[in-house]
Amino acid sequence: MSTAALEYLRNHRESHISLLDEFVRIPSQSGTPELKGEVRRAAKWLVEGLRKAGGENIEILDTKGHPAVYADWLHAESAPTVLIYGHYDVQPPEPLELWESPPYAPEVREGKLFGRGATDDKAGVTSALLALEAMLKSGELPSVNLKFCFEGEEETGSANLEALLLEHRERFAADLAVSVDGAHWSVGQPQVVLGLRGAIAGEILVSGPDHDLHSGLFGGAVLNPAEALCSLIASVRDPNGRIAIDGFYDDVLELPAKEREAIAKIPGTEESLLAESGVSELYGEAGYSPIERTWVRPTFEINGICSGHTEAGLKTIIPAHATAKFSCRLVANQDPSRIVACIRRHVERHTPTAVKAELKIMPVQANPYSMRADHPANLLLIEILESVFGRAPYQAWIGGSVPVIDMFQQILGIDTVSVGFSISNCNLHAPNEFVHLETMHLGTESLVLLLRGLATVLS
Amino acid sequence: MSTAALEYLRNHRESHISLLDEFVRIPSQSGTPELKGEVRRAAKWLVEGLRKAGGENIEILDTKGHPAVYADWLHAESAPTVLIYGHYDVQPPEPLELWESPPYAPEVREGKLFGRGATDDKAGVTSALLALEAMLKSGELPSVNLKFCFEGEEETGSANLEALLLEHRERFAADLAVSVDGAHWSVGQPQVVLGLRGAIAGEILVSGPDHDLHSGLFGGAVLNPAEALCSLIASVRDPNGRIAIDGFYDDVLELPAKEREAIAKIPGTEESLLAESGVSELYGEAGYSPIERTWVRPTFEINGICSGHTEAGLKTIIPAHATAKFSCRLVANQDPSRIVACIRRHVERHTPTAVKAELKIMPVQANPYSMRADHPANLLLIEILESVFGRAPYQAWIGGSVPVIDMFQQILGIDTVSVGFSISNCNLHAPNEFVHLETMHLGTESLVLLLRGLATVLS
Repeated sequence: MSTAALEYLRNHRESHISLLDEFVRIPSQSGTPELKGEVRRAAKWLVEGLRKAGGENIEILDTKGHPAVYADWLHAESAPTVLIYGHYDVQPPEPLELWESPPYAPEVREGKLFGRGATDDKAGVTSALLALEAMLKSGELPSVNLKFCFEGEEETGSANLEALLLEHRERFAADLAVSVDGAHWSVGQPQVVLGLRGAIAGEILVSGPDHDLHSGLFGGAVLNPAEALCSLIASVRDPNGRIAIDGFYDDVLELPAKEREAIAKIPGTEESLLAESGVSELYGEAGYSPIERTWVRPTFEINGICSGHTEAGLKTIIPAHATAKFSCRLVANQDPSRIVACIRRHVERHTPTAVKAELKIMPVQANPYSMRADHPANLLLIEILESVFGRAPYQAWIGGSVPVIDMFQQILGIDTVSVGFSISNCNLHAPNEFVHLETMHLGTESLVLLLRGLATVLS
Repeated sequence: MSTAALEYLRNHRESHISLLDEFVRIPSQSGTPELKGEVRRAAKWLVEGLRKAGGENIEILDTKGHPAVYADWLHAESAPTVLIYGHYDVQPPEPLELWESPPYAPEVREGKLFGRGATDDKAGVTSALLALEAMLKSGELPSVNLKFCFEGEEETGSANLEALLLEHRERFAADLAVSVDGAHWSVGQPQVVLGLRGAIAGEILVSGPDHDLHSGLFGGAVLNPAEALCSLIASVRDPNGRIAIDGFYDDVLELPAKEREAIAKIPGTEESLLAESGVSELYGEAGYSPIERTWVRPTFEINGICSGHTEAGLKTIIPAHATAKFSCRLVANQDPSRIVACIRRHVERHTPTAVKAELKIMPVQANPYSMRADHPANLLLIEILESVFGRAPYQAWIGGSVPVIDMFQQILGIDTVSVGFSISNCNLHAPNEFVHLETMHLGTESLVLLLRGLATVLS
């Protein structure tokens, strides 16, 4: 396919790389207080980038933390509006000694640009700038009105995004969100994302004696809180790997056979789970493939457990208390608060009277998110990705939880499609992060085609 | 009862208190490297004390750590030999602000002498000195030959005592040991100790992934090592509170009905277990009373457990590994190495193939120890305690493990009877430690009567 806008992009690949190079040089680490000024410098750089690309009403929106950057282009009269989301903050680069080139002095090697934030998410953000510029400069205008929301706190959990969206609900109002913080399956193989898992997290505290007891003097006469906690945790899973909490699966939507078949066709998923985890054998709920279990089945995981003497050497005590941190990944249509209630009931039922158990639920929660494979925007994106990359995209899920997508759903009432270039081997959050440049350029073309085509399917 | 030796003691109660006062002033903390010189000063003080009391062949025996002090009196021709054991080192006194009088400036209040080490074990050691002095000065000589072994490392685990006993096996050869590091039930109520539990300790390490995994990306596909460890620990106990490790109880001697009856007659044991532990409800193996479970039944206790994220806040990982420290209390005739083998088999059988489990056994082990209630030395001691205190002693066990008694059994082949004054409310190892002086004086009389009478029953 060739159009004036795509031609523009093809003629400006070098400018895109220069732009990305410039952007990556700013160490906008949102989690590093000393670099607060650099995060703001990146926001200002973005203001300038949006201005050059043709954005309007550009504004730095302050939050309690790092600011977000807003811009829009609202000249597609009576057409729908699309909110483009990305983030300009990055993870810390440590350990520095493992980088082959400095994290903030980008270097291109073998078609890849290396640097912290290269793929997560500065390539995505610059692709949005290039896409806007290409459409405006080529005269092949966006078919929809565009709003941009570039966040500066994604890497620290988007702590102030909810408040920002609530405060500026009107400003961000749109019909669909397009995230440029998305993933690509592998070089040459695109993907679409049909859903993400939700999450809840909490802590179980079991307490017994009012101080650590001498195991010689009291051993045999009191229930050991660490053992009571272990039994409680053991009761959560049945021998088939299913969660044995009453009601846990009640609201889980079974995936349609067609979508399961699509998943089954994706090659190499088990091999990569094995290779990337380093386990000798996969394990989980009977009746589902490993990749299904990470994408479309809910989980209960212990994230940490602590009790009594954990230092070197021997201390023969009965610990006074024991704590476990856990998190659940949820899938459509599980409701976080209903699952919390199920867990609370389970803990109450499985705590012997000789100890006390307390359940604390953490404030961070995310609803599961799913977007039908036949949603018009998905169908369009699938068609575009196939035409640009020459291969039908895999229909994938994300096992993790992306708070922003849940917020767009909850606060703005809109779905999100993802167009992104991060391949799982791009060293996200690790030394030697890189973006594969050809994938970035083709991804930018896909974004242009999407923004050019969305008006028809959304109307 | 009145004899010349007892009269001597009654006329020298003030000297005993002065001696104890002087001894307590030496901060002989074996666990505090800066006070190494003070520990040696206490050993030298003891050399002088033994000399004044009439001890012979007095010697400081060096070890890799703090020294032991040896002395003897071997003039009971063709009579058996008794080894008197005590320790002159003390626990650190911290937290100092909780002491009502300074730990190393003893103060007598309401018939109690307060100070670090007062009851554990300096009263015991001085009572041995006074007993020797009383017998030699009154002319009512010991009926047995006496050897003294005063250790300087009891509070740090008697780490060098085994080597010392092995090196000086001949010197310490005896027919019976008498420990002055013993306990007294309550003011006016003596006890004899019929046994101690043995112990083994170890660590179970469960490992799975080769690094902590993102619970969103991998949750559902791999077995969580923390959960596998919890299930393994949960499998150790059955719903009746019995240890469910095959073979664990095979060698356990059931207590004769008569001894169980004697235990059942001791009043207030449940109340004090409840009060001292702070639990709302006792718990344990069905079919045995709580105090029996702490004295004469074996246990498996988790001492500590650690895995994954244990700091504040949220980190939604699947931990790469999980560790639990455990210890078992053993009773006659359980053999530590057989129990280790049972545990090893249990761990192997209950570890799913999707994780690996490693069992590490710590080098410290103690055999269970028991001394028949009708052992002639016990019968004599029971008779003496009843005559001195006016009440039949309780027949008690100690749920903990005292390495030295096991060493005497293993290395010297001798039993140990305990004559001591520590009441459980004497704040052993805690601020405001004290010894109840009347109990100390009567205990010293009991010791004299025992050493005067043992020749007959041991011959």
